[in-house]
Amino acid sequence: MCFPVTRRFHWERLEQFTEKLFEKAGLPKQDAKTVAESLVEANLRGIDSHGVVRTGIYMQRIEAGMISIHEEMEVNEDGPVILLDGKNHIGAVVGDKALQLAMDTTKKHGVSLVGVKGSNHFGTCAYFLQKALKEDLAMIILSNASQTMPPTGGIRPFIGTNPFSFAAPAGKHNDFILDMATSVVARGKIINAAQKGEKIPLTWAVDKFGNDTTDAEEALQGAVLPMAGPKGYALSMFIDILCGVLTGAGFGQYVNNMYENWKDPQNVGHFYIGINISKFMPMEQFKERMDQYFDEIKAEPKAPGTSEIYIPGELEFRCKEERRKKGIELPLKVEEELRNWGDHFGVDLDRALISIEEVVE
Amino acid sequence: MCFPVTRRFHWERLEQFTEKLFEKAGLPKQDAKTVAESLVEANLRGIDSHGVVRTGIYMQRIEAGMISIHEEMEVNEDGPVILLDGKNHIGAVVGDKALQLAMDTTKKHGVSLVGVKGSNHFGTCAYFLQKALKEDLAMIILSNASQTMPPTGGIRPFIGTNPFSFAAPAGKHNDFILDMATSVVARGKIINAAQKGEKIPLTWAVDKFGNDTTDAEEALQGAVLPMAGPKGYALSMFIDILCGVLTGAGFGQYVNNMYENWKDPQNVGHFYIGINISKFMPMEQFKERMDQYFDEIKAEPKAPGTSEIYIPGELEFRCKEERRKKGIELPLKVEEELRNWGDHFGVDLDRALISIEEVVE
Repeated sequence: MCFPVTRRFHWERLEQFTEKLFEKAGLPKQDAKTVAESLVEANLRGIDSHGVVRTGIYMQRIEAGMISIHEEMEVNEDGPVILLDGKNHIGAVVGDKALQLAMDTTKKHGVSLVGVKGSNHFGTCAYFLQKALKEDLAMIILSNASQTMPPTGGIRPFIGTNPFSFAAPAGKHNDFILDMATSVVARGKIINAAQKGEKIPLTWAVDKFGNDTTDAEEALQGAVLPMAGPKGYALSMFIDILCGVLTGAGFGQYVNNMYENWKDPQNVGHFYIGINISKFMPMEQFKERMDQYFDEIKAEPKAPGTSEIYIPGELEFRCKEERRKKGIELPLKVEEELRNWGDHFGVDLDRALISIEEVVE
Repeated sequence: MCFPVTRRFHWERLEQFTEKLFEKAGLPKQDAKTVAESLVEANLRGIDSHGVVRTGIYMQRIEAGMISIHEEMEVNEDGPVILLDGKNHIGAVVGDKALQLAMDTTKKHGVSLVGVKGSNHFGTCAYFLQKALKEDLAMIILSNASQTMPPTGGIRPFIGTNPFSFAAPAGKHNDFILDMATSVVARGKIINAAQKGEKIPLTWAVDKFGNDTTDAEEALQGAVLPMAGPKGYALSMFIDILCGVLTGAGFGQYVNNMYENWKDPQNVGHFYIGINISKFMPMEQFKERMDQYFDEIKAEPKAPGTSEIYIPGELEFRCKEERRKKGIELPLKVEEELRNWGDHFGVDLDRALISIEEVVE
């Protein structure tokens, strides 16, 4: 008997393939590269929910004219405080512009606030955070998202799974990267389960009637639950206030769902807080303290069944190392969708497959 | 038969009583007032774990010379970035100094980062946030704390229940105030249960062997668990990195426990991020958007058994209103401790009792 098998792709050629698709769709080369890099980086780090699985929806929205790929973004700068209007450009490109502004301003003033309106779904925060880490900056990045979770005491989606993220550099250890949805799980993980036809745990979400469910498709029709009950609800609101209410972007019901709303721009908002570490202490000293902190946590006695205590971001760094060597495995549904777009634009997906000879064990 | 009954105190006279105690213990009048205000404000808002129940331990540490009440704090200012060395002054006073610096700097530069080292337990973040709200500023306040929670995969306390807090002003609605420990519950709530001799829910904490427990005293010997598993662990670390690693304060095991360590200063660290709303949009517009956001959330369909959907901070505003009218009820143990300190310094606690005639129904 013969079953369909999932295949592995070489991260670099998968990125090139994806970049080509976005170029063919009309994005300037540099922008196409940013989007492709952001997606494949998510796959490399094991965050498949935010990887090339999103290529299709981004392409559809570009094709439908729901994303403006040629408008000039607008920057309003007042010392360390910046308001960026993304003018409905594609999310990763708006996010990257905000990051550049945040980095430059943080270096100059010691701190920066960059509020962003008029953006779209921008992938993982960790993609941008890693660039800030290369410049030895610490940074908080927040984004709002379309309605997915009920408020505490509610039954239908009202707030987004608005992610909270933070990174700071370490020395000998991997850097600290926290990038989390304020839901029990990222909605993307439910999308991923639905793609793979898998069940989800009972605690993740409710269906559209407010009942607990293990069916990923039904959960997507219903609502993901906030993490830690009212605390997650409050954290999600805090993020919406800074990203949406304060910047002039959408908030609550006014952040449009990219899968469902084909009339309006998403109007997603983001918020960046840049922190210049060297204003507080010499960088070397900071990194030594980070290493000491991590060493001491990792040396703690372990619970039964635990082989190692991890620092936030550590598993993702390991995954990245492994997937760079062994390739990125894609679900059949995702491969099929990419192949269709490739066929549409005459870009060959098979070139991105990893060969047995290339796999480093 | 005759049972001991708890009694109610008038918030203002309870504050005066507490202020007097701290004055008698040697604090300058203004500082004594700040500490007393901070404690009674917590009681008013229903956060009894951080109310006058802490008077005893603060007094003991002052009497034991573990808190320096006369040293000059040190401010290092570089534009919008400030490092404050609290010089081991009492926490609420250090926290208030940091707040003043954060407010002044945020008004001037549009944003401020205030890192604080050499501090002590500073009460609730909400006390300071409310002062920022009076000036129409939004603010994030973080603090680290002594070891209480195991890292994910660990068994004994390593990180603190490091609180995360944020406030932003609304218009006709109560302001948004989020002030939460990164644990399933604040350790103070377990202290409170222990004071009252009450059991705690099974999910709150483990005993010192890592076993689940409903015994508050055993839980205090063990470890409170992080909220939402690894997400809470990561959030707590993020706060420790900014408050402790970055500022030069203690972090992890170097934030000393005020109840157990009688040799060293606590060296708690705090971190304030001030946000000048008017740099992004006119204040009136912001408040209108906040009101709209709250109106829309509160109008959402409610789950069975839910009479109202609350905005973070709303219940505390209502509690404050009620307790200002009806008085603050103190557990017998807390009353007894306050009475002993009163007797010690010749300050009359009974003057602070609320009379039946004063209670506003």
